[in-house]
Amino acid sequence: MGRWEPNARGRLEQAAMELYTEHGFDQTTVAEIAERAGLTKRTFFRHYTDKRDVLFAGSAYLQELIVKAVAGTPEPAPPIAAVAAGLDAAAGLLEQRWVEARARHSVIVAHPELRERELIKLASLAAAIAEALRGRGVGGRAASLTAEAGIAAFKIGFEDWISRPEPGDLAGIIRESLDELRAATAALSGP
Amino acid sequence: MGRWEPNARGRLEQAAMELYTEHGFDQTTVAEIAERAGLTKRTFFRHYTDKRDVLFAGSAYLQELIVKAVAGTPEPAPPIAAVAAGLDAAAGLLEQRWVEARARHSVIVAHPELRERELIKLASLAAAIAEALRGRGVGGRAASLTAEAGIAAFKIGFEDWISRPEPGDLAGIIRESLDELRAATAALSGP
Repeated sequence: MGRWEPNARGRLEQAAMELYTEHGFDQTTVAEIAERAGLTKRTFFRHYTDKRDVLFAGSAYLQELIVKAVAGTPEPAPPIAAVAAGLDAAAGLLEQRWVEARARHSVIVAHPELRERELIKLASLAAAIAEALRGRGVGGRAASLTAEAGIAAFKIGFEDWISRPEPGDLAGIIRESLDELRAATAALSGP
Repeated sequence: MGRWEPNARGRLEQAAMELYTEHGFDQTTVAEIAERAGLTKRTFFRHYTDKRDVLFAGSAYLQELIVKAVAGTPEPAPPIAAVAAGLDAAAGLLEQRWVEARARHSVIVAHPELRERELIKLASLAAAIAEALRGRGVGGRAASLTAEAGIAAFKIGFEDWISRPEPGDLAGIIRESLDELRAATAALSGP
């Protein structure tokens, strides 16, 4: 390992997002990202596999935050309430970064291989939430379905949040989405 | 185009699935698939882009079937009932091919790049269902959420169905999953 670079990850992420927005993702090289951040390519590769990786650097932390909140919701909350608490935690973090979230999302939707990676991250988040629910004693299929419901509300709520002209209340939008999901499926209950 | 080959697609798909199961996906070449099917590589490439493509050949048809059923459900069915009708139609088709569906799924789960592609197909299916719901007059976010609810029930129900030791009633399992989703989200309704 080379010498310690203060906040190398933060600087690289910011430089990458700036360049992706200014010149496009395809046109940006790792060398340019490192240069803009005032660091070397070697430092870049100590932190990230490739320029795609920079965009997903926050995913692991977000997942950890959500899973911790799901697991830590006091009993006897119903499983969906634990999931909602997890999504609240994620929203609290994302709300501080509306501009960055919008920029990141616009890069991702423009590139099929980045969209694929985003879907993989969401699928692994759903699996991690289901696992946390199983840790709370929720049975197999119900755990997976409750987790998927949360991911659906998160995904649709997030897309709504970043498409608004001003930063809104992401936690509130996700709660509304969960409620709309409840209302939509409630129409199923037969006689 | 060369001469007409009777049921070339069906023969190529069957040959591919046999080889993927016998030797593994990575170890199988397009030349081997064509040979097993009694056809040429040129014929293979008239029908498929690559050996990955063969595994997703049915997706477009399945999507068309579902969207048609969603759009064709008589009013005034609630949106989720239209989605359930679409999933019934898909289940009816898949139920005739339990062995093939299991074989295909076991190849896909073993390969990250195939799992990514499967997720993309599900995301595009969700978007197509949401679009069909909008065609029924369902508002933006509710259309997306109802479509995602259907996809969640389909995905979890399908995984349950293929993991059973004997072919079960897929339509029934998906209906049960939708009902579990309803029950899970119902716990949200506050005072």
